[in-house]
Amino acid sequence: MAVQKPSILSGTRDFGPEQMVKRNYIFDTIKATFKKFGFQQLETPSMEKLSVLMGKYGDEGDQLLFKVLNSGDFLKKSTVEDYHQGAKHMLKMVAEKGLRYDLTVPFARYVVMNRGTLSFPFKRFQIQPVWRADRPQKGRYREFYQCDADVVGTDSLICEAEIIAMINEVLGNLKIEDYTIKVNNRKILTGIAEAVGQAGKESDLCVAIDKLDKIGLEKVQEELVEQRGFSPESVQALQPIFDINGSTEEKLAALKEKLANSEIGLKGVEELEEVFRYVKQFGIENHNAELDVTLARGLSYYTGAIFEVKVNNVRIGSISGGGRYDNLTGVFGVDGMSGVGFSFGVDRIYDVLDELDLYPESAQETTKVMFINFDEECQTYCLPLLKRLRDAGISAEIYPQSAKMKKQMTYANNKNIPFVVLAGSNEIAEGKVTLKNMVTGEQMLLSTEDLVKSLAVN
Amino acid sequence: MAVQKPSILSGTRDFGPEQMVKRNYIFDTIKATFKKFGFQQLETPSMEKLSVLMGKYGDEGDQLLFKVLNSGDFLKKSTVEDYHQGAKHMLKMVAEKGLRYDLTVPFARYVVMNRGTLSFPFKRFQIQPVWRADRPQKGRYREFYQCDADVVGTDSLICEAEIIAMINEVLGNLKIEDYTIKVNNRKILTGIAEAVGQAGKESDLCVAIDKLDKIGLEKVQEELVEQRGFSPESVQALQPIFDINGSTEEKLAALKEKLANSEIGLKGVEELEEVFRYVKQFGIENHNAELDVTLARGLSYYTGAIFEVKVNNVRIGSISGGGRYDNLTGVFGVDGMSGVGFSFGVDRIYDVLDELDLYPESAQETTKVMFINFDEECQTYCLPLLKRLRDAGISAEIYPQSAKMKKQMTYANNKNIPFVVLAGSNEIAEGKVTLKNMVTGEQMLLSTEDLVKSLAVN
Repeated sequence: MAVQKPSILSGTRDFGPEQMVKRNYIFDTIKATFKKFGFQQLETPSMEKLSVLMGKYGDEGDQLLFKVLNSGDFLKKSTVEDYHQGAKHMLKMVAEKGLRYDLTVPFARYVVMNRGTLSFPFKRFQIQPVWRADRPQKGRYREFYQCDADVVGTDSLICEAEIIAMINEVLGNLKIEDYTIKVNNRKILTGIAEAVGQAGKESDLCVAIDKLDKIGLEKVQEELVEQRGFSPESVQALQPIFDINGSTEEKLAALKEKLANSEIGLKGVEELEEVFRYVKQFGIENHNAELDVTLARGLSYYTGAIFEVKVNNVRIGSISGGGRYDNLTGVFGVDGMSGVGFSFGVDRIYDVLDELDLYPESAQETTKVMFINFDEECQTYCLPLLKRLRDAGISAEIYPQSAKMKKQMTYANNKNIPFVVLAGSNEIAEGKVTLKNMVTGEQMLLSTEDLVKSLAVN
Repeated sequence: MAVQKPSILSGTRDFGPEQMVKRNYIFDTIKATFKKFGFQQLETPSMEKLSVLMGKYGDEGDQLLFKVLNSGDFLKKSTVEDYHQGAKHMLKMVAEKGLRYDLTVPFARYVVMNRGTLSFPFKRFQIQPVWRADRPQKGRYREFYQCDADVVGTDSLICEAEIIAMINEVLGNLKIEDYTIKVNNRKILTGIAEAVGQAGKESDLCVAIDKLDKIGLEKVQEELVEQRGFSPESVQALQPIFDINGSTEEKLAALKEKLANSEIGLKGVEELEEVFRYVKQFGIENHNAELDVTLARGLSYYTGAIFEVKVNNVRIGSISGGGRYDNLTGVFGVDGMSGVGFSFGVDRIYDVLDELDLYPESAQETTKVMFINFDEECQTYCLPLLKRLRDAGISAEIYPQSAKMKKQMTYANNKNIPFVVLAGSNEIAEGKVTLKNMVTGEQMLLSTEDLVKSLAVN
């Protein structure tokens, strides 16, 4: 067999040690908040039956699903006639499994299968990779983590307020300061469609205004008239609604007037009033949340509040988003399971922290101290010390063989190890060690007792 | 579309909240030790090119790889003639990607691709799922986590001693007490084959004695003679070697005599002497490691020390194993990358902790305190308190809507929440709350200040 130079699949990534430390910093921060708010972790399998996955994400989604070939003789369920009918026809004969496309459908499946034993409201979080057979490009991967939290089985708007609280806590803990949580409500969008005389066209309205950021107002207006059957008058009538400004309270008051004749629109306004009332009752200062009536979010699935988080001082898409839905499990024949959920975009948060240089020191160093390995005598002297440091909870290692000093120091530097212990024959004779600070270059001669103490504090 | 009852693929599992808490307890314990010993985390993609995976696990392994169907028209690279030649022939035309089968081959690929920038010795750990198209049965899954640590780029036997130290630390922290770390060395097995006059047949010897536990001594002897071409005399000569007993030091001394004429056998004995000397120098008491000359481990890949960990008071296979290898990256054309690694079997450790009832309380509870939701007045009173508890780092939640007391209590019980806060109109009038201990039933009337303090201590 000719030896091959290995490579990685396009659209996938290795996460080396430095990236893992940073990624774990983000995941741990998010998880800590999820747990503190009473969410419990769920993991579902990477592979699901295609019957569970297909038809849930639209035609495009079905195409973007990675399908897993049946094991063994994968052709055995097909005939040559099937072959002639092409790949689309053959698919169900050669593949019965697919890779998870998102965390929502597996969650819905889990809820349906376990609804007899789960305690509702069920608050779950889930942090796992998903796979999409998309064309890879900058910032778009074929494997990436999703990081979702949902409460199902309650329509209490306290949950919406808690999502705002959680976003604030997570971003605050990550030291991201300049961000906006945009909030809207699907019922308000339905109401707006009614108010401008286009009742029933809220989906078209949503799809079009979802592009505001990308293509601008004029193009959106064009699209509404030319492709989505909105009359020019209705698009005119939209303008003053989109122009509403002021504080969230002022905007909601203005909307109430504009939507006075839309029952559902008024319901949407009331829901948001209640959400913001809870946020206030919680006593969250600087909650960064504000009403944005142009926020639409693509998924037709949402029925109540919707959210999206933008970092204001970094050019990047939204780093978090979510909303309320009426019917999580309807596709599996179980109705009436309403809930609200949101998710963090970890890849984007990673880039934001990099760009704003917000990773703490602790998210960069790994081993705290390394013993230089001079020779056998040094090893014999250092191994018990190494154990004592580790027993004291200090991450420590010894360079495993005696090698040139420079090589060992380079290793420590590359690994961002902040302290190095040197025990040459002088130190050993005195029963001491030299501790070198790799950042300042400072060296101290210490007793072995003081070594442990000094590193435990540092 | 007829609504389907969803189900999960056989051989795969959902991990619900209770299982996740226990699994995370195990993963976190293992990770903490890996990090303390200077290992750094790596994650590689779930999907690799089939060219990277195929041919690395033998024919059976190739069959057990899950292959991912090419996207779009997966038949386009094939003709009907290919179809007629069958699945095996068609495979490379319809699938170019596969799911990770273990963590070693992706690690080798990573090392080869990044060897210009990595600092050697490279100590990495990796905790990710792997997939195998095996027939599912009790304890055997198609998706399961592996949990590996390896040092590559050094042949220092300190690494072997540190593996023994890490196994002791992890199992000690998990409160598993009665276990044995069986240690052997491939060179000793090679030496034994030489010593009994079957030089070069160490692979046959390994494969056969690997079955000692399962089929017993007699069947192994039979297999050696009948299927593996060992002479009856050589099998006779094996007996006294397998019968060597006493302490590890005594066994090594006895082996030295038996293998006096085998250079490689003596090398193996010396290596183990050195490993045990380091273990002693570290000062690890009760290290639970002992020489077992009948330990073989299947993989032909190992060339030096090999390990396996058995829990003595639970009937279950080994919960950890590993060994030293000469050539991690040879399959990818990069020679001379030696290293040593081991891995923990998380599914088995999970079962051991369950059977021995070793999960700590903290691995069972989730939210620490829940506020009962009586009505709107209660909500208004409780939301700021809820925030104060969370700000103090206490995991807390409020039942999101007012519901029957019994329903809320059942929810708290099912979720293993140890404390419940009740704030009825009496408490509110006094500016207090009642804190109920869900385990003892005890209730206390507390000021809101004392509520925070009392839960922070508990």
